[in-house]
Amino acid sequence: MSILVVGSVAYDGIETPFGKTDRILGGSATYISLTSSYFHKPLKLVGVVGSDFADSDIQLFRDKNIDLEGLQIDKSGKTFFWKGRYHYDLNNRDTLDTQLNVFEKFDPVIPDSYRDARIVCLGNIAPALQGKVLEQIDKPDLVILDTMNFWIEGARADLEGTLKRVDVLIINDSEARELSGEPNLVKAAEKIHDMGPSTLIIKKGEHGALLFTKGGVFSAPAYPIVDIFDPTGAGDTFLGGFAGWLARSGTYDDDNFRRAVIYGSAMASFCVEKFGPERLINLTAEEIIERYTDFRTLSAIPVQQDDVF
Amino acid sequence: MSILVVGSVAYDGIETPFGKTDRILGGSATYISLTSSYFHKPLKLVGVVGSDFADSDIQLFRDKNIDLEGLQIDKSGKTFFWKGRYHYDLNNRDTLDTQLNVFEKFDPVIPDSYRDARIVCLGNIAPALQGKVLEQIDKPDLVILDTMNFWIEGARADLEGTLKRVDVLIINDSEARELSGEPNLVKAAEKIHDMGPSTLIIKKGEHGALLFTKGGVFSAPAYPIVDIFDPTGAGDTFLGGFAGWLARSGTYDDDNFRRAVIYGSAMASFCVEKFGPERLINLTAEEIIERYTDFRTLSAIPVQQDDVF
Repeated sequence: MSILVVGSVAYDGIETPFGKTDRILGGSATYISLTSSYFHKPLKLVGVVGSDFADSDIQLFRDKNIDLEGLQIDKSGKTFFWKGRYHYDLNNRDTLDTQLNVFEKFDPVIPDSYRDARIVCLGNIAPALQGKVLEQIDKPDLVILDTMNFWIEGARADLEGTLKRVDVLIINDSEARELSGEPNLVKAAEKIHDMGPSTLIIKKGEHGALLFTKGGVFSAPAYPIVDIFDPTGAGDTFLGGFAGWLARSGTYDDDNFRRAVIYGSAMASFCVEKFGPERLINLTAEEIIERYTDFRTLSAIPVQQDDVF
Repeated sequence: MSILVVGSVAYDGIETPFGKTDRILGGSATYISLTSSYFHKPLKLVGVVGSDFADSDIQLFRDKNIDLEGLQIDKSGKTFFWKGRYHYDLNNRDTLDTQLNVFEKFDPVIPDSYRDARIVCLGNIAPALQGKVLEQIDKPDLVILDTMNFWIEGARADLEGTLKRVDVLIINDSEARELSGEPNLVKAAEKIHDMGPSTLIIKKGEHGALLFTKGGVFSAPAYPIVDIFDPTGAGDTFLGGFAGWLARSGTYDDDNFRRAVIYGSAMASFCVEKFGPERLINLTAEEIIERYTDFRTLSAIPVQQDDVF
């Protein structure tokens, strides 16, 4: 069993109402793989970085037992850089700068040693590239894909082609509405199932997440955190926790998908506590268990003998 | 044990994107008492109606075993009338007409036979009137209050005075933010606890509800209904189901509050299926049990021996 993670590896400049950082490790593949590394090893990363990528960041991945054979180091340019500023409510942000750099010509090449990965995590990159990854690997147990409005609007044909080969799609509520053309999320989920993914997870930010499988719907609570410091990477972290738990436990039934959604939610709730992936670097197993238990408790409805009407 | 319900009894004209009714029974006391009547009897209603109030509506209350000794029939005018139109998203509505009629001079008088009520439900009326009700009754087990932005903005001093004597406050998220002056709901809940209510329920519409007690937070899921027909009265119905379950079960601990929130949510999910209170008139016990079970299932996280990280 191994997890393959494909996505961006980047540096981010982030401003939130609570602080500012000029340059911090980022990118979807970074968040996914750092998070999954708490659950399962080996993790196999595919991405590209430039000549400016710090040795200390390479070392960070190595310390987490993340296999970097698939990480291309392109000395002809710099690492993908994004800079953004969050609004006061943290639900909206403005992009201040995007420098694709070496990411512009990213062409994912899957090393032979990666081809038998059982769980494939396709971070939010161009749907054509996500499809290209799938062409290079043996039949995995589970393909998990993240995407965004930018691709739904600008690369719909590619996305629809790739979705046919996807098992789990993870998007937010506005993306689900846009992809399906349905304002009602239940109807949206039905249409998206028809596009390919048998499992759909709709992230609703502060309102938790919905899991739609063929077997029914699961409503996962959000953790009422007193202070969100920086939401960057929370969605990728969710994906990493979800995939990580499934890899660790090795079963893919509806009950275990529910647990995986809670692990994803728990990991995302850590992510937002500090800048970028800072909080994901030194978590302990005890902290993860405690947060998972907090989530369980949050939505538990205690049964008593006579609690039925 | 008895439940006392104070609020408006009205006729409503309702337009939704799916239909229109010129005149249907409405008002907070109507929704609360019809809903509670499935859980517990006797129900004691306090309100006022005018000369136009239909015998068939009186009979409806009687059929539901609702005590009408406290329902004033003021022949000098007509019953409170409200007319509104919902927007396409059903989250917003425009008021097209408000005729207070006999409700304008409503002065709640609590009959002697009502004074020993154990649970008091104060529907959304002027905070001064809600306070006046509390002055007329013996010490109940539980006082539950609903209010709205109109009173938070226009009658804050009255509201703050009344809240000191309230055990459970039920409001929506924007009302909680306005009442507390805190955008963060966890901090808002702390401030509202300090105002009096030891229990706070924040309704979040399609995103479920949060229950804040001294013991912690409970996140209740929303029922992903495919088609909401008419949201009128859903909040009052929630209150009726919440109070009804507590009266039926007779315990007021955190675990039972969680169940009560789910019963309130389940009843509200019925309410929105048809116009006004239509769906609340002929429910069966089996339907209520089934919906309650659906809610439980919706958020259940199945435990397995090795599901801890």
